Amino acid sequence: MKKLKYWGWGHEGEMLHASQAKALLDNLADFGIVPSDNGKFPDLDAINLPRCRIAPPATLQDMFKSAAYERVLHSFGQSQPDSIRIYSCDFAHAPDLVAYPGNAIEVAEIQDWCGDAGIAVIPYGGGSSVVGGVTGDIGSGYNGTAIINMSRMKKVLEIDDVSRAARIQGGTRGPELEAQLKPSGLTLRHFPQSFEHSTFGGWVATRSGGHFATLYTHIDDLIENVTMVTPSGEISTRRLPGSGAGPSPDRFMMGSEGALGIITEGWARLQGRPVFKATAGFLFERFFDAAKAVRAVSQAGLYPANVRIVDGVELKINGAGDGSRSLMVVSFENSDHPVDAWMARADECCRDHGGIVDVEWRDNPGANLQGTVGDWREAFIRMPYNREFLTPLGIISDTFETAITWERFENFHDKIKEATELAIMEATGLKGAVSCRFSHSYPDGPAPYFAFHAQGRKGELLRQWREIKNAASQAVIEAGGTITHHHAIGRDHQEWYEKQRPELFGDILSEAKSRLDPRGIMNPGVIVR
Amino acid sequence: MKKLKYWGWGHEGEMLHASQAKALLDNLADFGIVPSDNGKFPDLDAINLPRCRIAPPATLQDMFKSAAYERVLHSFGQSQPDSIRIYSCDFAHAPDLVAYPGNAIEVAEIQDWCGDAGIAVIPYGGGSSVVGGVTGDIGSGYNGTAIINMSRMKKVLEIDDVSRAARIQGGTRGPELEAQLKPSGLTLRHFPQSFEHSTFGGWVATRSGGHFATLYTHIDDLIENVTMVTPSGEISTRRLPGSGAGPSPDRFMMGSEGALGIITEGWARLQGRPVFKATAGFLFERFFDAAKAVRAVSQAGLYPANVRIVDGVELKINGAGDGSRSLMVVSFENSDHPVDAWMARADECCRDHGGIVDVEWRDNPGANLQGTVGDWREAFIRMPYNREFLTPLGIISDTFETAITWERFENFHDKIKEATELAIMEATGLKGAVSCRFSHSYPDGPAPYFAFHAQGRKGELLRQWREIKNAASQAVIEAGGTITHHHAIGRDHQEWYEKQRPELFGDILSEAKSRLDPRGIMNPGVIVR
Repeated sequence: MKKLKYWGWGHEGEMLHASQAKALLDNLADFGIVPSDNGKFPDLDAINLPRCRIAPPATLQDMFKSAAYERVLHSFGQSQPDSIRIYSCDFAHAPDLVAYPGNAIEVAEIQDWCGDAGIAVIPYGGGSSVVGGVTGDIGSGYNGTAIINMSRMKKVLEIDDVSRAARIQGGTRGPELEAQLKPSGLTLRHFPQSFEHSTFGGWVATRSGGHFATLYTHIDDLIENVTMVTPSGEISTRRLPGSGAGPSPDRFMMGSEGALGIITEGWARLQGRPVFKATAGFLFERFFDAAKAVRAVSQAGLYPANVRIVDGVELKINGAGDGSRSLMVVSFENSDHPVDAWMARADECCRDHGGIVDVEWRDNPGANLQGTVGDWREAFIRMPYNREFLTPLGIISDTFETAITWERFENFHDKIKEATELAIMEATGLKGAVSCRFSHSYPDGPAPYFAFHAQGRKGELLRQWREIKNAASQAVIEAGGTITHHHAIGRDHQEWYEKQRPELFGDILSEAKSRLDPRGIMNPGVIVR
Repeated sequence: MKKLKYWGWGHEGEMLHASQAKALLDNLADFGIVPSDNGKFPDLDAINLPRCRIAPPATLQDMFKSAAYERVLHSFGQSQPDSIRIYSCDFAHAPDLVAYPGNAIEVAEIQDWCGDAGIAVIPYGGGSSVVGGVTGDIGSGYNGTAIINMSRMKKVLEIDDVSRAARIQGGTRGPELEAQLKPSGLTLRHFPQSFEHSTFGGWVATRSGGHFATLYTHIDDLIENVTMVTPSGEISTRRLPGSGAGPSPDRFMMGSEGALGIITEGWARLQGRPVFKATAGFLFERFFDAAKAVRAVSQAGLYPANVRIVDGVELKINGAGDGSRSLMVVSFENSDHPVDAWMARADECCRDHGGIVDVEWRDNPGANLQGTVGDWREAFIRMPYNREFLTPLGIISDTFETAITWERFENFHDKIKEATELAIMEATGLKGAVSCRFSHSYPDGPAPYFAFHAQGRKGELLRQWREIKNAASQAVIEAGGTITHHHAIGRDHQEWYEKQRPELFGDILSEAKSRLDPRGIMNPGVIVR
């Protein structure tokens, strides 16, 4: 059994290779960003955990763990401030206990006990939140904090190969899900970057964005029904391919981020495994021309699986180009028929907007591994490991993502980029690097995904990060974007989410919370506070 | 100015041609359904309207009308029971007043006055509800009833041809909308059967289903944002191509059917006008084989604009075939590129499942007007005029629609059909005709659309209809379907909707109603009661 790291992404022993680490530093150095520290994550023994304040009743005892490793592992998600606090050995908000329920009844039993005892409950899927969604900063109003780790509920309970759908337990991680689907020849093909360490229930709770850059972008679009266990009881909707019966109850549970209850299971739509695939890569002199090509493809009714662009800065930092040009990747996949007609038209759209072929798609089954496309793909896969390498070196590295309509995009991009660059300068006194790509695209606008890197100062990383993050968030909200396209709200976006959300809808959410979670124990501070 | 009929569909002077009417009766006679009455709609003078109980304050007076024609016209929608009550001269629930606000402020002013005065408000778009959504049966708890007719708010306020979207006022009817979009070369292409007499705001409020049989089936999928005026204030969401920021506020307003507020405007996604089109027609010996072909096309990732099947009974009643075979229509359309590759694959799927060509698509631009496809199309267009012809003849004629996953479909179909046939026999003592088609289709299931015809007895039509409708609704709910795929809830589906809806979600809706409409004046009895 591989052990999960408490200081970063994945299992012990998994990390950037030395050559990858060196390349990353070299690339950052080209932007003037160099290490300012040489930290190390704290040994388990060295972590000063607060005393465990609570003890479960005998009837529930078997479900709970309270060993130091468990409490430390569940103290944080995968955000930049999480990482900074881990490396600063700040575990003041560690949970008291970690519960591992095996079914929906046990979830309800834990909620009941926590409600009676005034204990906050933080639902925990894969722990991959990059927005503080599982971080235990919940104030002083509780007698303790219990994590509900859903990892025992990891089964695909039914597969319907006629309708192509499966009933999936909330705690099922990406690889566990696909392994169980495999014999059926069907697949969910929902691959968020966190795929390995995120769960079906977590995807639904956070409206995660997946593999598909168009059409079925969010898990929302793949859901037939949802079952959620709340402190007031279970909500379970009908399994339907479509409905128009009143406001959608599924769409109200999706995005509730554990603040109303825990997604214990749901039916999701599957597809045949792709048999026909094609990938093309294009380089553009100007990022905005690449964006125009994305717009053309998105408005053509082609629905590519992938249509993503990456600007020069992002490519250079990730070792996929010299920074002078932007990359566009277009892919089609299908289980039913060849995709040549689709790809041929997308190819035309890209060339029409000045795209120069980086990787040709015709008769080229390995296209996705070649050229700049392949370099970027490799960087993308190892990206989750960057943070645990950079944080101890005093380098701040974070991303944020949004969505905006096409007619506002260019101005929006420049404003966000400038605001973030300015904030880095103000917070650190040094220039940073701010880059942009598109994670998803719609006929009416893209989902721009920004990354920033900055050289921080030892002991001040958290403050510096917060200043940059706040400035970026403020810019996104002021310029009309959404505070998140698929990273969710968590605790880090709550302030900006409240600015974005219509006030009366905030009231509705508060009253829904009062009805479903009358003692306010569920993921306090998230969505409703 | 053409005058709208108060007894049926459309304007005065519009109706079935004599030859169409005769053909319809001949076709029904083949099922043993013949006229049992020879009624006539009541003259305006003959209608005994209840006394108008309320008078608007002087400041609002100009917005209100109270002439008999206005009150009669707004007494009902377009449902079968509405029609029966019109022809029975039952106007006991006529509204006292009809308001025509010109902007969102006036909508709020009317709501304020009605709230203060204890007057129920029924929002009225095109009045096309087939489920009692605008019918004033609201009990005795109010001092009066005011209709808010949105027809003065009929402007397209902005067109964004870069993102392909438009800001549209809630009262804009289908033809008014498309006429205003036309100069831009863009179109919403949302064509519910009620297109001529339904409004953008009504579509959003009822989650209407449109032209597209796959993918963008509901208006929900075309909406960037919604502005709703509630008695507690306005809710307006950000205009975004996509978002993952908490539970969707748009999806909470969609389907609220006037029970929370009135949709005054919203941004909707447009498309280029289709340049490339292809339509094919196939006949199948067995309806379930046609359904399998629909499933194959729906699961192939082709996203046809149309993929609909119609069973033999439905075809025969509508003069499009002898009843021995089922029809399948498949269409593709695109503004950007030829659709041959798409159509060719769909064609294969149809033939694979036993489809015999009715209308060939290759090199055939007029395909949609030919053969059984053309006959069905013509019948479909005139269908809204059938009811005002049949009701006075004592023939009950209604439809209901639902959705179900593929693996349950055949059994579901048989159960619903049997339950409805049995109910017709029990309610009327005679055999009726129950037919089925698909209005929309998803990768995981179809939206079956049932129609029934039955010979009623004079003076008992309403009771007979209700017995049949209740049995059909009960069968749909028991067999796992949704009480509506796109006709909405209204007053006629409320009882079944409450069985379908998770109880705790019903509580959430009630509390939302208390927050947004604390005096409970908005469309009482619909969604929340």
